[in-house]
Amino acid sequence: MKLQDIQQKLGGERIGEVASQLAGVGTIESADETQITFLANPKYRSALGRTAAGAVIVGPEDRDITSKPRIVAANPYVYFARVAQLFSPPASHAGGIHPSAVVHAGAVIAASAAIGEFVSVGFNAIIGERVQIGAGSIIGENVSVGADSVIAPRVTIYPNCSLGLRGIIHSGAVIGADGFGFAPDFQGDHGSWIKIPQTGRVIIGDDCEIGANTTIDRGAIEDTIIGNDVKLDNQIQVGHNCFIGDHTVIAGCVGIAGSTRIGRHVMVGGAAGFAGHLEVCDGAVISAMTLITKSITEPGMVTAVMPQMKHADWLKNIAHLRQFDKLANEVKEIRKKGDAS
Amino acid sequence: MKLQDIQQKLGGERIGEVASQLAGVGTIESADETQITFLANPKYRSALGRTAAGAVIVGPEDRDITSKPRIVAANPYVYFARVAQLFSPPASHAGGIHPSAVVHAGAVIAASAAIGEFVSVGFNAIIGERVQIGAGSIIGENVSVGADSVIAPRVTIYPNCSLGLRGIIHSGAVIGADGFGFAPDFQGDHGSWIKIPQTGRVIIGDDCEIGANTTIDRGAIEDTIIGNDVKLDNQIQVGHNCFIGDHTVIAGCVGIAGSTRIGRHVMVGGAAGFAGHLEVCDGAVISAMTLITKSITEPGMVTAVMPQMKHADWLKNIAHLRQFDKLANEVKEIRKKGDAS
Amino acid sequence: MKLQDIQQKLGGERIGEVASQLAGVGTIESADETQITFLANPKYRSALGRTAAGAVIVGPEDRDITSKPRIVAANPYVYFARVAQLFSPPASHAGGIHPSAVVHAGAVIAASAAIGEFVSVGFNAIIGERVQIGAGSIIGENVSVGADSVIAPRVTIYPNCSLGLRGIIHSGAVIGADGFGFAPDFQGDHGSWIKIPQTGRVIIGDDCEIGANTTIDRGAIEDTIIGNDVKLDNQIQVGHNCFIGDHTVIAGCVGIAGSTRIGRHVMVGGAAGFAGHLEVCDGAVISAMTLITKSITEPGMVTAVMPQMKHADWLKNIAHLRQFDKLANEVKEIRKKGDAS
Repeated sequence: MKLQDIQQKLGGERIGEVASQLAGVGTIESADETQITFLANPKYRSALGRTAAGAVIVGPEDRDITSKPRIVAANPYVYFARVAQLFSPPASHAGGIHPSAVVHAGAVIAASAAIGEFVSVGFNAIIGERVQIGAGSIIGENVSVGADSVIAPRVTIYPNCSLGLRGIIHSGAVIGADGFGFAPDFQGDHGSWIKIPQTGRVIIGDDCEIGANTTIDRGAIEDTIIGNDVKLDNQIQVGHNCFIGDHTVIAGCVGIAGSTRIGRHVMVGGAAGFAGHLEVCDGAVISAMTLITKSITEPGMVTAVMPQMKHADWLKNIAHLRQFDKLANEVKEIRKKGDAS
Repeated sequence: MKLQDIQQKLGGERIGEVASQLAGVGTIESADETQITFLANPKYRSALGRTAAGAVIVGPEDRDITSKPRIVAANPYVYFARVAQLFSPPASHAGGIHPSAVVHAGAVIAASAAIGEFVSVGFNAIIGERVQIGAGSIIGENVSVGADSVIAPRVTIYPNCSLGLRGIIHSGAVIGADGFGFAPDFQGDHGSWIKIPQTGRVIIGDDCEIGANTTIDRGAIEDTIIGNDVKLDNQIQVGHNCFIGDHTVIAGCVGIAGSTRIGRHVMVGGAAGFAGHLEVCDGAVISAMTLITKSITEPGMVTAVMPQMKHADWLKNIAHLRQFDKLANEVKEIRKKGDAS
Repeated sequence: MKLQDIQQKLGGERIGEVASQLAGVGTIESADETQITFLANPKYRSALGRTAAGAVIVGPEDRDITSKPRIVAANPYVYFARVAQLFSPPASHAGGIHPSAVVHAGAVIAASAAIGEFVSVGFNAIIGERVQIGAGSIIGENVSVGADSVIAPRVTIYPNCSLGLRGIIHSGAVIGADGFGFAPDFQGDHGSWIKIPQTGRVIIGDDCEIGANTTIDRGAIEDTIIGNDVKLDNQIQVGHNCFIGDHTVIAGCVGIAGSTRIGRHVMVGGAAGFAGHLEVCDGAVISAMTLITKSITEPGMVTAVMPQMKHADWLKNIAHLRQFDKLANEVKEIRKKGDAS
């Protein structure tokens, strides 16, 4: 591919042209002359001078930062993503069901869908056009998977759940396991937890990506709902009856307790947590490893992180937290005395 | 089902009767006239007036809060759970081994057990009456699974582990992987970690539920033990040689380092952690995302959570933590001076 | 085995001999007379007097602490690990491919490798001598697995990734799922996240152990690299383009955001986190549940943990954190006044 080919497909202004075909994309540091890189973050401007890349994607403000063949695009990072997609088109799969798969006679599988080895598809499941289901995945009864979705190997979708169009679910993800609901029936030392049947579903919208080993529990009575264009990283837990709004992105290891309602365009840092039955408004940003215990009503960043210290400093400083109330009262006393004198 | 049918099975006082059959359960907000709901938490009393539910379960103190057909029960939430179970009886499975399963000739499978597609059952495993094993689950040698247990698709149980009666294990759970044990054998820049064989087992009692993608490691020498009626949510890690007492419930994403001993009736919030070799007494309650680094010797709640703040406030306030010791010393100095003057 | 047999294989000084054969290893508390135990931590010296073990491994400084038959070794814990290995040699597996496995004709499988039930091995994969691949594991195209590695049941290795010699990967682990990379393409309320193809690989060195349900994402363009003798516990997330140096050990539930560079001989406590694009120097030690947001440049321990308190104390003390800045300013004011008077 030459810059001209790229420009024809993706637009932008082209300045110069590479001598030989481009073979792929690369980072500023690692790209060689067969690769195209990009500059989106101003702090990498100086690094650009040292890149060996054959071509560069830059923003209008960096139009003349280099003499290399380049494309000027309004959003260089997005343009780069699209170029990378040109160089890595999705593998084409012939439709068909692997002979080892067990597909219920009552399931409806599009002719163009590719069903891998050791896949089980239950009664009444509907698998759309060009869907790929990787080896060892288990698709329950009444599940629907929208067209062009890719389900990696070893994914479980429990009965009655649905995935929209163009979804991606990575290996080990579990969609629709029972939510965590038990009523305590104890009298003194007798009794037990009584399970509340989890009869809701998980409904996932279009264009979602669900990371490896992420779990999304089915609703207790109503459904757990994931909007459109929601991106969940790996190892995330979404409790029963949660709602996650469109375009929200959640980094790895986040835990979301049941009935949390997260708005649109929310960004959640890794290993953050939500205490359940909370609302998080559109546009909120939550720092990594922050526990949200109260609803968030204004866009902007919320944080609850202890700052890292050398262990000796931590020991010295943090011990005072246990006596913080006493200290604050002492300061109050001193001020009173000072005011009185 | 009418209220009379429910009352016949579950007891309680019935006041009035629904006109048509009830079809299921619902929440106060979402139930329609074909559904029965419940009032357990006094803060929902006002919401009850707006419910469209056809019938309600209430406690003795709320006997006359509504004119709807109702059942008065000592514990409305438990009663509701049992009603929900009436409406969602476990699916009946014909026993049998799917032709695609690989069951070792030396395994003992009850005739009423249902073994799914692509299941592997190892030598000497014992699978009890009416057990269900979902597609793609792997049951190792010498594993025993008690009667009426349900193992979801894609569960691994390593050799020699056992699960009691009426257990539920959700998809992706891994029972009995090696604990994390290595002896450091380094001299200067040479050497390596020496693996300590993990030869203990995981023993899980009766009536336990293990969440999706939860992992419970086998003991190093002795066993990892989970009591009866223990409920573990998703994405939990239980280290080798842990002990978890009866009726303890643990929310999602909790990590429990090796040899932690957790008592009976303990409640652990989501994403909490245990530093290992600790004891937690019966009846302890641990807040979400709290790291327990010292044993807990009294029932009651323990917390270690940084409070959420707007990021700007966090920046301003939390910076002082790094100088807390200096500040505390200054206050001490000021007090000394004050006392001296 | 008698002490003499052990000594012949592993060296050390032998004092006395057991009357009957030893059958295995045990802890100081649990070992019986057929077992050998060890004393490495001085705080267990007093407990040693009560052990029922038939023999003991001690360090030179504890040479005469007991009259039991014993071996004196420079490093009793390492010696114990090796003795435990003698008593638990790896199970020998006849090589061979289970008839239910689906192995691509273009894959290269060593004759001594054992491929389990329902395993899928893709085109051009290379499986080394004596490798074991457990039931239900999915090995993608172009994957290479080094000799003597053990892959547990239900592991996924995505295409193009590689594992070195003598590796162990536990059940549920996912190696090489897509990293979390999206470019935001929004204008007002329109737009979506554009996926950046994740075309790098995961390269894992020799002698590594990867825990159950741990996930390691493939690189975006370059590779995610795990060195030699790296030990990862369960439920860990390693983001794309991370680098983890030789001999580093990471406890369970840790989350490592993308492009983090962790040095050699680093020790990471459970549920710690790394904010991404950071460097952690050789020999760093990170406390459990600590979030690392800045690079670490010196060996030694770094901590960021809120200390556990009774909930009532926490409520009282931690409320002041929200007004810490005000309090610090008040102390400053008081000091100024004091200095002025």
